[in-house]
Amino acid sequence: MDTVVEALRAALPASAVATDDETLSRCSHDDAEWADYGLPAAVVFASGIDDVAATVRIAAAHGVSVVPRGAGTGLSGGANATSGCLVLSLERMTAVTEVNAAERYAVAEAGVLNDDLRRVVAASGLWYPPDPASQSISTIGGNVATNAGGICCVKYGVTRDYVIGLTVVLADGSIAKLGRTTAKGVTGYDLTGLFVGSEGTLGIVVDVTVKLRPLGGREERAIVGYFRSLTDAGRAVAAVSAAGIVPSALELIDRTCLHAVAQWQGWELPEEANALLLAKVDETGARGEELAAAIEALFRAAGGARVERASDPDEVDRLFAARRLAYPALERLGPVLTEDVCVPRSAVPEMLARIEAVAAEAGVVIANIAHAGDGNLHPLIIAPEGDDDAKARAKVAFDRIVADCRALGGTVTGEHGVGLLKLPGAAEELSPVVLGLHRAIKDALDPRSLLNPGKAFPNGA
Amino acid sequence: MDTVVEALRAALPASAVATDDETLSRCSHDDAEWADYGLPAAVVFASGIDDVAATVRIAAAHGVSVVPRGAGTGLSGGANATSGCLVLSLERMTAVTEVNAAERYAVAEAGVLNDDLRRVVAASGLWYPPDPASQSISTIGGNVATNAGGICCVKYGVTRDYVIGLTVVLADGSIAKLGRTTAKGVTGYDLTGLFVGSEGTLGIVVDVTVKLRPLGGREERAIVGYFRSLTDAGRAVAAVSAAGIVPSALELIDRTCLHAVAQWQGWELPEEANALLLAKVDETGARGEELAAAIEALFRAAGGARVERASDPDEVDRLFAARRLAYPALERLGPVLTEDVCVPRSAVPEMLARIEAVAAEAGVVIANIAHAGDGNLHPLIIAPEGDDDAKARAKVAFDRIVADCRALGGTVTGEHGVGLLKLPGAAEELSPVVLGLHRAIKDALDPRSLLNPGKAFPNGA
Repeated sequence: MDTVVEALRAALPASAVATDDETLSRCSHDDAEWADYGLPAAVVFASGIDDVAATVRIAAAHGVSVVPRGAGTGLSGGANATSGCLVLSLERMTAVTEVNAAERYAVAEAGVLNDDLRRVVAASGLWYPPDPASQSISTIGGNVATNAGGICCVKYGVTRDYVIGLTVVLADGSIAKLGRTTAKGVTGYDLTGLFVGSEGTLGIVVDVTVKLRPLGGREERAIVGYFRSLTDAGRAVAAVSAAGIVPSALELIDRTCLHAVAQWQGWELPEEANALLLAKVDETGARGEELAAAIEALFRAAGGARVERASDPDEVDRLFAARRLAYPALERLGPVLTEDVCVPRSAVPEMLARIEAVAAEAGVVIANIAHAGDGNLHPLIIAPEGDDDAKARAKVAFDRIVADCRALGGTVTGEHGVGLLKLPGAAEELSPVVLGLHRAIKDALDPRSLLNPGKAFPNGA
Repeated sequence: MDTVVEALRAALPASAVATDDETLSRCSHDDAEWADYGLPAAVVFASGIDDVAATVRIAAAHGVSVVPRGAGTGLSGGANATSGCLVLSLERMTAVTEVNAAERYAVAEAGVLNDDLRRVVAASGLWYPPDPASQSISTIGGNVATNAGGICCVKYGVTRDYVIGLTVVLADGSIAKLGRTTAKGVTGYDLTGLFVGSEGTLGIVVDVTVKLRPLGGREERAIVGYFRSLTDAGRAVAAVSAAGIVPSALELIDRTCLHAVAQWQGWELPEEANALLLAKVDETGARGEELAAAIEALFRAAGGARVERASDPDEVDRLFAARRLAYPALERLGPVLTEDVCVPRSAVPEMLARIEAVAAEAGVVIANIAHAGDGNLHPLIIAPEGDDDAKARAKVAFDRIVADCRALGGTVTGEHGVGLLKLPGAAEELSPVVLGLHRAIKDALDPRSLLNPGKAFPNGA
């Protein structure tokens, strides 16, 4: 019998199968470099659904695992290769195959970048809201695999809320068209929803049907303010919620993060600036003004300093500069291990205080960016390049944060997915009965566990 | 060994187990009387999760099926009993066990009526949007089982979009807590979403965690207009969509339905009134006025007559009276077989024309209420009481409508569920591969097919 690579070369165009060291290395992991990964036997670059189906069939015939891959921007290790597997890259499948303005949906191949999808549908007056920070570099297929969130999902929902149909290749190479293109539909189980967020463990997503919103009818207004304490900032967030306002963004940046940005950009921070809150509303006209003014007043009432408001698009961008610059500013300090926990909104100040304590105890730098309106925190744990001891301490901090999040009634991953990094946390969060349900479904759909084995949930079986 | 009823009586309070003829008869079917049903061996009225778990365990030990039941308002036969089964009624589980205003969620037992949930959360300034027409009489558990829609879901989404957690009793009597209470969370598979709409075939829902919206910040404005033809009304609907307006209601009532209401209420209809469109917007202040005025203008431009607009709550109610009175007006004419198909929005006029042809050909009266903004139509097929031949022709019409909906790219059930009535349609709509996925999941979670057997999807196995 041929080897799996020989079989792939016989079945696919020459350019589809790569086994050179550079490609194998580049495609062996996503952005969660701290998670384990092995070297794949080959990387297949699919150009269409037939390539995907052929690859899965050949892999199944050879008993070889398939690890699907979008742009490799994941932060939990969901695309990390297992040794000897086939990495199946969807990055060449970049067509938006349909935009239906009357019905407000679009169909995109898995490899379409989030921003490209957004741009294409905008030309038809439509809007695809989910906006992960990676939107310029991550694929819609990867967004679906992780059920990606973003900044505006505090108002507009996450990837799952927009996916109404999927085409997937199953573990035996068969093709399933799931979902619908109509506005509503309840025929059969919600398999589309089941596959969203399943990290390629139940099937390979080859195209995605998303519902869309009208592009117009929104005007962005930004409101930002500095706070003396995390508790004050937390009070401001709670006050916005209690006022019945649903902002289209409500982000928090903590002191460590602020100082990294300020130092880099030569900004002068207000005295005792321990947190920056950045909000947006997007209602039009007088209503937008009214809501922005209300948030400004609530920020001031909670002790906010240098509270500013803007409606001019350039000014809105300027006010949100700290959010945009936060991650690159921190990366200058060393490799970043990105956390992703979600606690009740009201527990954000307490969670940030606990993270501060964890940082002190573990002797690592932790900066925080938080989707405060969602209770979704991204503690960024920084270890200086080449310092193995710091890296070990960072991992300790990572686990401690997960435990603290659980203690506050939180969930171990808000929007990045379980991948590999959150397997221990997921084992804590999911009860034995619920883990049993996961295993039963995985076994039913992929009995030999060939699709992205070991990801998405702790499969102790 | 005890019989299953003896075992139930030994395990549960006396008042929980009913075997009298009246109860057995009352609980043997839902509102889809035209679907088949058998006589249950007993009806269990659960007072809590322990009763549910005990019932399922006892049923499993005796190899007896369990058919869960909310208020029995379903329209597809999803709660219809199989002969000798246990009907498990959740109607006594009516507690809203938690309302969390800060985090904007509530937890309700399965038997809580939709309107009661709405009322309880309103007291905390919160809003649960999904509004099936049955909202005053249907339970949240039943809404979850069918993934119920409603009028405002054209803007605010369906039941699934609000359910973030469930407690379910599985086929072996074990208890699974699914989902989360945080705003976001992607730990493991979206089992919550899988169970929503699964019609009790994968587990029995005992409580439901729903996310909520702020109650305030909305002002209803209604816009109604009569149209000379379905095509004109269809153009008005398309024009609203093309203008980027997302109304909070966009309903259509056809001539047959209009005349039934007018005759009953002594209304005078405009000449050649072949369709009535009823729209709402709920933006506040000037923006609301602007959108209502825009819809009014679009209705007029499409040939709308007697176009009226209102913002006073009583006036809004008056304008929507025809919608409210439609179903009772038709029920006066005879037993109603309710259809529920969903086509592309733009295909609504064509679908209505086809339904008219079906009615003529089958020799039955068909009146139409449609969630036009969603493309979700409810043809109401009326057969005079006691006329078995008309009933047979009604069933022919039912099947023809399903086939026409499929031909126009639609789905066989928009919001009522597959139950029993849509099994043949679902068999057409779902491919063999997708049906195989359904079977695999059902077998994995309920290998003996004890939970609501034969519902939700055509399980040919």
